[in-house]
Amino acid sequence: MIRRLAIIGVGLIGGSLARALRNAGAVGEIVGCGRGKENLDKAVELGVVDRYSHDVGEAIRGADMIFLAVPLGAMRETFAAMKGHLSADAVITDGGSAKFSVIDDCREVFGEVLSNLVAGHPIAGTENSGVEASFAELYQNRRIILTPTAETADDALARVQAMWQACGGEITLMSVEHHDEVLAATSHLPHMLAFGLVDTLAQMKENDEIFRYAAGGFRDFTRIASSNPVMWRDVCVANRRALGKMMSHYLNEMQELAQTIERGDGEALLEIFTRAKQARDRYIDGVLDSTE
Amino acid sequence: MIRRLAIIGVGLIGGSLARALRNAGAVGEIVGCGRGKENLDKAVELGVVDRYSHDVGEAIRGADMIFLAVPLGAMRETFAAMKGHLSADAVITDGGSAKFSVIDDCREVFGEVLSNLVAGHPIAGTENSGVEASFAELYQNRRIILTPTAETADDALARVQAMWQACGGEITLMSVEHHDEVLAATSHLPHMLAFGLVDTLAQMKENDEIFRYAAGGFRDFTRIASSNPVMWRDVCVANRRALGKMMSHYLNEMQELAQTIERGDGEALLEIFTRAKQARDRYIDGVLDSTE
Repeated sequence: MIRRLAIIGVGLIGGSLARALRNAGAVGEIVGCGRGKENLDKAVELGVVDRYSHDVGEAIRGADMIFLAVPLGAMRETFAAMKGHLSADAVITDGGSAKFSVIDDCREVFGEVLSNLVAGHPIAGTENSGVEASFAELYQNRRIILTPTAETADDALARVQAMWQACGGEITLMSVEHHDEVLAATSHLPHMLAFGLVDTLAQMKENDEIFRYAAGGFRDFTRIASSNPVMWRDVCVANRRALGKMMSHYLNEMQELAQTIERGDGEALLEIFTRAKQARDRYIDGVLDSTE
Repeated sequence: MIRRLAIIGVGLIGGSLARALRNAGAVGEIVGCGRGKENLDKAVELGVVDRYSHDVGEAIRGADMIFLAVPLGAMRETFAAMKGHLSADAVITDGGSAKFSVIDDCREVFGEVLSNLVAGHPIAGTENSGVEASFAELYQNRRIILTPTAETADDALARVQAMWQACGGEITLMSVEHHDEVLAATSHLPHMLAFGLVDTLAQMKENDEIFRYAAGGFRDFTRIASSNPVMWRDVCVANRRALGKMMSHYLNEMQELAQTIERGDGEALLEIFTRAKQARDRYIDGVLDSTE
C-alpha cells in the first residue's frame, strides 16, 4: 500500500497509473505535479489526483512513492528539483523509454545512483495523450520492464514491483543496457524508419500527388510518424548509443537489399521476404495475440 | 456493357472486379482462368464466374474484355498463352502494381505494344486473398490508375474506363514511368522497409525475446511484412529501376539521420520529426479521411 504517491507529469501514463492504483485500493493520497494548470485542474476534477503543485519539491513532500512521467529530456532538471525534498522512505521510479540516460541523470545530479531509484518502463500507451486520455486498465496484462542496478535496494525494487502488480502489469527485470537495446530495436528504430520515410517523400518534388496515391498499408506503416516530435527528439538523444548501433545494423541490411533489387536477384529476394514474413507471423502474431 | 469477361487469376482482385461488374449489370458472361481447381470451383459456387478453364487460350475465346490478375512474374507467360486466341474486339487490361514491366512483357511476346492493351492498377486491396475474400465494393471510391501508351487505341481506353466506372472507381490517367515512381514511393519502398526491419531483428541473437517486447505500434508498422513473398519478389524485379532510385534516396536520408542521432543533435532531430509529422498529418489523414 502506497501512503502518498507523487506523480510528476500527469498525462496518459501518469494518470493511468493513478487511476489503476486508486481502483485497486493500493494508494492513499495522490499528488500531481506539472506545468499546465488546466491539465492539473482537469486531473483533480476527474479524481485522478487529490491535489497538485507546480513545484516538484512541494509535490514530493512526504511521498513514499514518486513516479516520474516527464519527457526524457526533462529528467535531469526533475531530479535536480527533487534534491533535498525526498522523504526518508521515498522510492523513485519512472516510465521513460530509455533507461541508461535516466540513471545517468540521477548520478549527475546526486553524485551517485540512488539506492531508492528503480528505473522502469511500462510497455503500454495509446495514440492519445493528456490526463483525459488516461484509464485504469492501460497496464492490464502489459509488460512492465524494471531495470534495477547494483545500487538498487531490494526493498525499493519490491515496492515498485508491488505497485505495478496492483495495476495488473506483468513485470520483467532486465539490465539497463539490454532494455535500451531491445527498445531501440522494437520501438525507436521503427519510429526512425517511419519519420525518415515520410520526410523523404515530403521532400520530393511532387509530394502532394505522391501522398494522394498512398493506400491503407501506407497509413498504418506511417502512423508512428505522427508521434510527438519533442518526445522522439528526447528518446533519440537519450538512447543514441543503442539506437545508433541498431540503425547501423539496419542500414547495412537495407544496402544489401537495395543491391539485390538492382541486380534483379529474385531468388535472394524471395529468401529475404519469406524469412521476414515467417518471423513476423511467428513472433508478432503469436506473442501479441496472447497479450492484447 | 461487356459481353464476355475473361478473368485470368480469380482471387481478391479479379473476383472483386467480377462481383462489382455483375452487381452493376455491366457484364454478360464471366469466364475464370487459373491453376487451382478448388479455388475456381469455389468461384463458380459463389457465382463470381459462370465457368472456368485452366487454359488461358480457351478462357479468353470470344472475350471482349480480358483482365489479367496474375502475379507480375507470370505476365509474360500469360501473354504468350494468349497469343493467337484473342478475339478481334478484345481489350486487355491488368491489375499489376508495376506497369513498365507489363508493357515490356507484351512487347516481348507480341513484338509490339498492342493497341488494345490498357495497363492499369486499382489502388485497392485487403490483407486477405483468394476468391472467398472478394467483394463487390472493393473498388468503390478507390483510385484506379490507367497508364495508356502512345500505342493505346482510344476506344480500348474508353472501354476500360467504363468498366472501372461501373465498379465505382475513380480513374486517373498517368504515364507508365510516373506510375512506377509513385508506387515505388508509396507502396514498394514501405514494404522493403518493413521486410528489412523484421529480417534485421529476426537475425539478432536474442530475437525471440526482442519480439516479445514489441508493442502495438510495431505490429502496425510491420503488418506489411506479412505480405506474400512471391508477389513482392515479382514487384521488386518488375519495378527495380524506380524502386532502386527510391531506395537510394531513402538510404541517403537515413544515413544523415543516423549521423544526426550519433551527434546527439537535438535541434536537427526536432526539425526532421516535426517536418515529417506535419507532412503525415496534413497529407495522409487529409487525403485518406476523405476517401476511406
